[in-house]
Amino acid sequence: MHRAVIHLNDAAPEKTQTVLQNTANLLAALGPETQVELITHGPGIAVATAPAAEELTTQLTGLLAAGVTLCVCQNTMAARRLTPTDIHPQAVVVASGVAHLVTRQSEGWSYLHP
Amino acid sequence: MHRAVIHLNDAAPEKTQTVLQNTANLLAALGPETQVELITHGPGIAVATAPAAEELTTQLTGLLAAGVTLCVCQNTMAARRLTPTDIHPQAVVVASGVAHLVTRQSEGWSYLHP
Amino acid sequence: MHRAVIHLNDAAPEKTQTVLQNTANLLAALGPETQVELITHGPGIAVATAPAAEELTTQLTGLLAAGVTLCVCQNTMAARRLTPTDIHPQAVVVASGVAHLVTRQSEGWSYLHP
Repeated sequence: MHRAVIHLNDAAPEKTQTVLQNTANLLAALGPETQVELITHGPGIAVATAPAAEELTTQLTGLLAAGVTLCVCQNTMAARRLTPTDIHPQAVVVASGVAHLVTRQSEGWSYLHP
Repeated sequence: MHRAVIHLNDAAPEKTQTVLQNTANLLAALGPETQVELITHGPGIAVATAPAAEELTTQLTGLLAAGVTLCVCQNTMAARRLTPTDIHPQAVVVASGVAHLVTRQSEGWSYLHP
Repeated sequence: MHRAVIHLNDAAPEKTQTVLQNTANLLAALGPETQVELITHGPGIAVATAPAAEELTTQLTGLLAAGVTLCVCQNTMAARRLTPTDIHPQAVVVASGVAHLVTRQSEGWSYLHP
């Protein structure tokens, strides 16, 4: 079984859309038991704050339904004065996005930054 | 012996040139027995489709002669309606570029995204 | 204990500032015994050449005091005709930035390219 963290620290809608599509392709290729965490921090947190563009929301909803975990960085939330009510209800808050990316790799997860 | 996957998902000629140069420097530093796969997907497939700028072609030819494997993503080929005849004859087609990047890391390969 | 290499190959001050901030956040989250190498090559060497913007210098000084290692690529120095006197006195010169990133991962270090 494969495990991968995907790094998103960019808010541009086209970039975000690409990363979500890459994530969908990854799952399709490696199978539904693959563990994937989409880890957002800095500007990348935009994908987890409402309202997003409708197309992105649809893509994200599909990934969450397929078992992808959406992680948001608490440091970023604090810097932007965001509270849990500002964040996607299915998002998981991690203390630090970059630390989570490092920790997961030390546990054997692969890293992708599209 | 070192093994590395290099991630290319950008079509800009300057970026591509940089990635090819980074790959050449990597081989020069780690020695000719190093295994390197240049994994292209999305816009990054441009380096593997003809015609490319002459300077890029020369760089790529040198890397292939030095044993680098050029991988192209079948998902990207399908999305762009590219057939094998559109692709560099020495390229290796992988089912999914992102999945290949994850799989290689799980096999112990290092990851670089310049 | 965590070990991470952070890849910087961009000279843009905003990007550099972000990477330095990410590095500080990483250390704060994982603890002071964490080993972090900031590996610069290509345009990213700018952070290690004087004079830099004052804000970047302050950030970098703080990271070095916290135990982060600043690595600069000898290939890049040669290509830009830089000598050790052009480089931050605390910087460590590595033969090849990309090779060092690969080698560290093969030794179990995590990789981040913000």
